[in-house]
Amino acid sequence: MDPRVREHARIIVEHSVDVQPGDEVLIRGGRHTEDLLIALHELIGEKGAFPIMFDQPARANRAFMRAMDPDDYDEIPDTLEAMIDNVDVSIGIRASENTHETSDIDPEKNTAFAQLMEPIQSKMMEKRWVGTQFPAPGNAQDAEMSTEAYEEFVWGAINKDWDEQREFQANLVDVLDDGSEVHLVSGDTTDVTMSVEGMVAENDYAEKNLPGGEVYIAPVPDSVEGEVLFDMPLMTQGREVQDVYLRFEEGEVVEHSAEKNEDVLSAVLSTDEGAKRLGELGIGMNRDIDRFTYNMLFDEKMGDTVHMALGRAYEWTVPDDMERNQSAIHMDMIVDMSEDSFIEVDGEVVQRDGTFRFEDGFDG
Amino acid sequence: MDPRVREHARIIVEHSVDVQPGDEVLIRGGRHTEDLLIALHELIGEKGAFPIMFDQPARANRAFMRAMDPDDYDEIPDTLEAMIDNVDVSIGIRASENTHETSDIDPEKNTAFAQLMEPIQSKMMEKRWVGTQFPAPGNAQDAEMSTEAYEEFVWGAINKDWDEQREFQANLVDVLDDGSEVHLVSGDTTDVTMSVEGMVAENDYAEKNLPGGEVYIAPVPDSVEGEVLFDMPLMTQGREVQDVYLRFEEGEVVEHSAEKNEDVLSAVLSTDEGAKRLGELGIGMNRDIDRFTYNMLFDEKMGDTVHMALGRAYEWTVPDDMERNQSAIHMDMIVDMSEDSFIEVDGEVVQRDGTFRFEDGFDG
Repeated sequence: MDPRVREHARIIVEHSVDVQPGDEVLIRGGRHTEDLLIALHELIGEKGAFPIMFDQPARANRAFMRAMDPDDYDEIPDTLEAMIDNVDVSIGIRASENTHETSDIDPEKNTAFAQLMEPIQSKMMEKRWVGTQFPAPGNAQDAEMSTEAYEEFVWGAINKDWDEQREFQANLVDVLDDGSEVHLVSGDTTDVTMSVEGMVAENDYAEKNLPGGEVYIAPVPDSVEGEVLFDMPLMTQGREVQDVYLRFEEGEVVEHSAEKNEDVLSAVLSTDEGAKRLGELGIGMNRDIDRFTYNMLFDEKMGDTVHMALGRAYEWTVPDDMERNQSAIHMDMIVDMSEDSFIEVDGEVVQRDGTFRFEDGFDG
Repeated sequence: MDPRVREHARIIVEHSVDVQPGDEVLIRGGRHTEDLLIALHELIGEKGAFPIMFDQPARANRAFMRAMDPDDYDEIPDTLEAMIDNVDVSIGIRASENTHETSDIDPEKNTAFAQLMEPIQSKMMEKRWVGTQFPAPGNAQDAEMSTEAYEEFVWGAINKDWDEQREFQANLVDVLDDGSEVHLVSGDTTDVTMSVEGMVAENDYAEKNLPGGEVYIAPVPDSVEGEVLFDMPLMTQGREVQDVYLRFEEGEVVEHSAEKNEDVLSAVLSTDEGAKRLGELGIGMNRDIDRFTYNMLFDEKMGDTVHMALGRAYEWTVPDDMERNQSAIHMDMIVDMSEDSFIEVDGEVVQRDGTFRFEDGFDG
């Protein structure tokens, strides 16, 4: 077995979800992930915990989704509810043979079924959980890489010293926790300000996401002002949206456009009131992610980028006494900050052209 | 997709477990079974039922079993217990890449863990369930067949008119239900008698086993007298036992031998008191199974054979007022009845050289 697989398994079990004796560990991972499943089962056995495999092949899911009528289903199956109530840990491993396997499922049907199953997702997020990636051929294809080069990329981003990464990111957490107004500028297309006063900056060092590698915070919903061109493409509802442009006034999107699939963007914005406001500002800090691969788990942690999400703000980022933006959606979009760009907090430059002021080479 | 796969799925869903709207259907099947999983998901969706996949790859299971210490586990995980309590239907699909994947797990460890998990197995047998086979390369290898020829064999035995098969087998059920003493003779090596007075003959027409194709009954435990040479090999605990010879007195094995792995046979016989007595007499009647393939799901239904099982008699074959043989084991063994053989019930020949008296070509 590739030693990088064993290291990946070790980080999952010991760092991300910290498996303990007696834990009942739900694992989802398909046929491409077999080596990682083997390594995980070995470590979980050594810990005296219980592995429980639960995975539906993408093609089987697509067959079910096309054949079923959502009107026939009015509640979550008791089996899944009982299962999720009892597990202690959940490990989800993404690996696609074909990332477009769901592209011929009726989107309305998909949405209706996803809404029905949403409580399972919510309950799962109350457990110790991690979502990670296995370097499968379909994901390599999206990244326009050979499978072998993609393996190097994926394990390069995952198998690292997360304590060191946490310490590196803590520098930015301190700045944001102490700060009030954030100002982002990139070229002449992005110039936006927002308040983060009173919000909690999160240090993502690969607990829930593996790879981790970002610091994120919820903006005060009404405070966002200015315009942003998200110059990295994004995938949503199985379609690629390019060059999303948004203009904000008093926190709300008042103008929008996109070069490709603008109708998808418009549909997302009209989902609900919260869909027109930002729920997250994230700053990518994983420098081993050095290219865009059409995979948000990686893209949003890329060095030299920031991302903003329309829609839902995560509960743990908003103190009880602050307003939390609520929405059925959470759509991340990325801005390249590597050139002609800066981030200021309360008038002081924190990052210029991708380099932080607590890094070598910073040119304030 | 091979149309034989769709037919296989249809028989499972409509004949074997009769999936109904709202059913929560547990499916276990590995990566080799993907086409059958797709076909099942489609049919289950059409029925308005819920597919729930649950499968542990054989290599992952082996890794867990080798790494774990059975002393660390003292109860069934709540997650599995909750799951099995809630499912309505269970579909188990066998398919091996390597049928010896468990061969380097310590047998004592295997037994200890199997005993812990036994209640899950028992609860599952109270549901609508079926065990079936997908023609995977490892199983074809055991059968000494190409994968394509093995596909022909497997689907030939499975995709058939089970109503017709049920009617054919009903002829023998009537004989056994009305009968008292069964006498089996094959060559000069097998000559055994047993009482089935008051026992219930079961017609296996592919409900719990797919393929089905046998009629079976529990002998009165103390009634078995004589000797049997099981001239077909059997696999138990990952090892092949050949030419098992047993001599019975008052239902109990008083002499035993085997040409290969006799120690395994001795160990099985000494498991408990019930392991020395027969729990089942079965007569194979699926004429599409025309060869031995080292797979008991098929072998025991082969035409021109009978099998007897040491150990546990199934509850549904023994009326409440009769003694049921109890044991932790149930080991099937097969006798070739194609030549120089006969089965008599109450002195009347029911089968000679493999042909039943209700078939053409019977030479009473």
